[in-house]
Amino acid sequence: MAERLGTDTLRLQNPPAVLSWAAVGGKMEAEGPLGGAFDRVEEDTTFGQDTWEKAESRMQKDAVSLALKKGGLVPEDLQYVFAGDLLNQCISSTYGLRELGVPFVGMYGACSTMAESLAMASLFVEAGFARRAVAVTSSHFCSAERQFRFPLEYGGQRPPTSQWTATASGAAVVGEGTDQGPWVRAVTLGRIRDLGITDQSNMGAAMAPAAAATLEQYFRDTGEDPESFDLIATGDLGAVGTQLLHDLLAEEGGPDIRSRHKDCGLMLYDRERQTQVDAGGSGCGCSASVLCAHILPALRRGELNRVLFVATGALMSPTSVQQGESIPGIAHLVSLSARRQEP
Amino acid sequence: MAERLGTDTLRLQNPPAVLSWAAVGGKMEAEGPLGGAFDRVEEDTTFGQDTWEKAESRMQKDAVSLALKKGGLVPEDLQYVFAGDLLNQCISSTYGLRELGVPFVGMYGACSTMAESLAMASLFVEAGFARRAVAVTSSHFCSAERQFRFPLEYGGQRPPTSQWTATASGAAVVGEGTDQGPWVRAVTLGRIRDLGITDQSNMGAAMAPAAAATLEQYFRDTGEDPESFDLIATGDLGAVGTQLLHDLLAEEGGPDIRSRHKDCGLMLYDRERQTQVDAGGSGCGCSASVLCAHILPALRRGELNRVLFVATGALMSPTSVQQGESIPGIAHLVSLSARRQEP
Repeated sequence: MAERLGTDTLRLQNPPAVLSWAAVGGKMEAEGPLGGAFDRVEEDTTFGQDTWEKAESRMQKDAVSLALKKGGLVPEDLQYVFAGDLLNQCISSTYGLRELGVPFVGMYGACSTMAESLAMASLFVEAGFARRAVAVTSSHFCSAERQFRFPLEYGGQRPPTSQWTATASGAAVVGEGTDQGPWVRAVTLGRIRDLGITDQSNMGAAMAPAAAATLEQYFRDTGEDPESFDLIATGDLGAVGTQLLHDLLAEEGGPDIRSRHKDCGLMLYDRERQTQVDAGGSGCGCSASVLCAHILPALRRGELNRVLFVATGALMSPTSVQQGESIPGIAHLVSLSARRQEP
Repeated sequence: MAERLGTDTLRLQNPPAVLSWAAVGGKMEAEGPLGGAFDRVEEDTTFGQDTWEKAESRMQKDAVSLALKKGGLVPEDLQYVFAGDLLNQCISSTYGLRELGVPFVGMYGACSTMAESLAMASLFVEAGFARRAVAVTSSHFCSAERQFRFPLEYGGQRPPTSQWTATASGAAVVGEGTDQGPWVRAVTLGRIRDLGITDQSNMGAAMAPAAAATLEQYFRDTGEDPESFDLIATGDLGAVGTQLLHDLLAEEGGPDIRSRHKDCGLMLYDRERQTQVDAGGSGCGCSASVLCAHILPALRRGELNRVLFVATGALMSPTSVQQGESIPGIAHLVSLSARRQEP
C-alpha cells in the first residue's frame, strides 16, 4: 500500500516497473537531438492518413503497439489504458485506441497528460487493480495549430515566446515486476495554479507557477533535495518558462533545481538549428516522447539513477482565452528510479 | 484490497462510502420530475455569469461547495478532485475548480464522466490513496449546443432522435466510512465499442452498444443477475438508445434488464410535458444530477437497496464527425449499495 508523505505525495511501497515503452515522432522530431532514439519516425507527418487528426490517432496507436511489442506483450496483457490528448474531446486517444479492446480510462491534463496517465497507471498497479496498464498521449503540430491558433495556410506570425507543438506520441507500459526497471517510486498529483497570465503565445509562463508548486510540494512532502536526482525533467516550459520557474523557486524560497533541471521542450529540438521552434517544444507528445525516447531508456541502461518527471499543462481553451480568462496551469510529478528500493 | 472478478470488474473489499453529494440544475431541470430533489436550481441559466461556459463552471463550483457543506466538510478534507466535462479542453472543470486548491485529476469520458470519476475516487479511497475525494462533472445546454451543433440563435431543427443536453452538475464525495451509506461495492471500467453509427443526432444509438457491453461484462464477471438490483440506471441513452440497448442485449444473449432498467435521460425530464427534449436528456450533467438528486438520496433513505449506475459516453467530436468517422461509445459502471456488506 502506498504511504502518504506530507499532504500530496504517495510513495509506492511495492513500486511498479515500467516494463516497456515506445516513442513515435515526425520529421522535425527525427531531426532533433533525440531523433535517433525514437522507435518510429516518419518523414511524412500525415502518417498515411487523410487528416492531421487521424495522423495523430495513428501515432498513439503505433506508440502503444510498439511498446507492447518491445515488451513481448499483447493487448490482452493489459487491464487498462490511461490516455488523453489536446484535441477537442480527446479524439486522438479515443479513435487511436478504439480497436485496442482494453478498458479505457480517458484523462485530460493538457500537456501534463503523460505524467498524469503514468501516475494513474502506476497507482493502479501498486493497488493491485491491474497487473499491467499502459499510459499514452500524443500531440501533432498541424492538428494543434488549426485548433488552438491559426489554420496552417494562414501562415500566422509567431512571437518569440511561442512554443512548437511536437508531432509525437509516447506510450509506457507499467506492471508488476522486480527484474528490470525503471520503477515508479512516488507520485505527486498537482493542484491548479493560476497567476493571471493571459497571453496564449506564452504557455511556458502560464505553466511555470504550477511546476514550481508541484516541485516545492514534492520536496516538502519527502524531505528530499534536488541533488538526490540526476535529472529533474519538466515539460514543456520552453526557454521562457524555464527561466520563470527558476526565478519563481528562488522568490518563493523553494529548492534550487538548476544543476539538475532540464526541460523536455528544450531537449526535443535544437533551437539553434531548428529556429522555427522559437522558445522550444510543447504539446502532450513532447514530454511523452522525451520520456520514452530518452529518460526511460537512460534509466534502464543505468545512465540515470533517479529522475523526477514533471509534466506541465495549460488548462485553457481558445474559448476561455477569447472570453478574457487567464490561463491556469497544472503539473503532475512521477518519481522514477533505476533501483527498486533505495539503499 | 480490491478483488478482480472475471476480467474487468473490481470488487471493493473495504467499500468506500458516498459521504455527501449535491445536484445543481437549470430551469428545465427544475421543472422536470426530479426538480424538487435538486440542491440548487436557477431560473436564470446564466447562473449570474456573462457566458454559458462560465455558467457551466459556476455550476461545478457550486455542486462541489454544496456537497462539501452537506457533508460538514471543507476543501482541505479532500485529497483529490476527479473532474471532467464535454467542453473543449474540459474548461468547465478546470475553471470551475481552479480555486478549490485540491489536487486535480482531469478526466474525459464524455457523458460517462460521472461514472468514470466516481469509480476513480472510490478506487483511490479503497486503495488508501485518499481519505476522501470528490467526483464532479457538468453540462450546459447552451454551451453544448453552440460547440457541438448550432449557435442557439440559428434555431436549428432537431430530429426526433435528438437528446437535450442537461444544464446540470452533480458532485459526490467518497470517503472512508462505515456509519452511513451508500457504499461503492464494485467498479467496471468499460471498453470502447463502435458499431458504426455516424448520425450525431442519435447519440443514444451510438452509446447503447457500449452500455450493453459493460452490463454483459459486469454480469459475466460477477455471476449476479439483474434481479439482484432495484435499479439499473443507464445514462444517457434516451428513448431510442434504451430500446436499442434492450434489443442488443436480447440479440447477444445478454441479461434481461427490462424490469430493473431506467435511463437517466428519461428520468430527468417529463417528455410528455417537456416535448422539446425529444428522445430525452443527455450531457455529463444528466446522469450526474440524476445520481445526486435521486439515486444517492434514495439509497441513503433505504428506498433503494442495490443500484448499478452505468453512465455512457459518445467519444466523438464535431471534427471527427465532419471527417466521416463513426461514433465510438463507452460505458463505465459503479455498483452501489445501501449496505456495506451483502448478507
